[in-house]
Amino acid sequence: MNAFQDDYAEHFSHCFGCGKSNPAGLHLKSNWDADNPDATLLRFTPPEIYSGGVPGHVYGGMIASLFDCHGAASAAAFACRAEGRVMGDWNLPGSVFSPVRYVTASLKVDYLRPTPQDVELIVRASLLEMQGFKIRLAMTLHAGETLCARAEMLAARFREKPAEAR
Amino acid sequence: MNAFQDDYAEHFSHCFGCGKSNPAGLHLKSNWDADNPDATLLRFTPPEIYSGGVPGHVYGGMIASLFDCHGAASAAAFACRAEGRVMGDWNLPGSVFSPVRYVTASLKVDYLRPTPQDVELIVRASLLEMQGFKIRLAMTLHAGETLCARAEMLAARFREKPAEAR
Repeated sequence: MNAFQDDYAEHFSHCFGCGKSNPAGLHLKSNWDADNPDATLLRFTPPEIYSGGVPGHVYGGMIASLFDCHGAASAAAFACRAEGRVMGDWNLPGSVFSPVRYVTASLKVDYLRPTPQDVELIVRASLLEMQGFKIRLAMTLHAGETLCARAEMLAARFREKPAEAR
Repeated sequence: MNAFQDDYAEHFSHCFGCGKSNPAGLHLKSNWDADNPDATLLRFTPPEIYSGGVPGHVYGGMIASLFDCHGAASAAAFACRAEGRVMGDWNLPGSVFSPVRYVTASLKVDYLRPTPQDVELIVRASLLEMQGFKIRLAMTLHAGETLCARAEMLAARFREKPAEAR
């Protein structure tokens, strides 16, 4: 099953965090949570270079990045589902659909405790509210069973200008 | 003049964003703002790999990272100043001072508009409130003259365990 980010249109796929077309990037991959149909999930083990100030912990910017990329991708997936569509339907042969892409309007991260390195991190997102072109999500980050950080995101739908106005 | 991060004690200096002892890191450098004695300043031009989804813009995680590293460093500098100390006094020969280091408890970033690449980004922090071991900061990120993002941080002082308790 494609990750949400694999379905992004090519011109939206260059993000360092999660873009398939950024060869130097982290290639973060989000998908539906197999254990909870109302949630999305990202798994990632940050390479050792992404240390925090004290070795053995992940730096704060990485944690924000995981929430940012996973949240924006999840917003697109929740929006597609609410419209009775599936992520990536714009890639189907002969599709009449426009690509769906969300960007972060606001992100609040609560760092609850130091996040250890060398452990797989699990980020989950769930939908709080959908209003017009805006979506609010709640997210958590666990290292194993330990809740290390929490976040709330407001994501806004990217509205492309028609080709003739670009 | 040393950057705040250059004064961090060695065991606090491994952050990917701003640690002098992380050879793979970004080596972000914060200092007092020469034009405003009540503010701190960071200048950084993100390398091209840190693209957002749409090329030509910086990815959201980088923006959060800049606020995170600059905010934590600024909190330490504001705390030292409030105590009549200077950043890095713990490094002076024969110093009796303990290192001051803050970590992020909470960070809220408002992404106001896309942040362009190939432009020097300027992050400023100012003190909102200091209460016990917690400091609240307001920050802005400009690309040239354009305000692209705003943030608020709650930073908490890192309290080292005495050596015998480690």
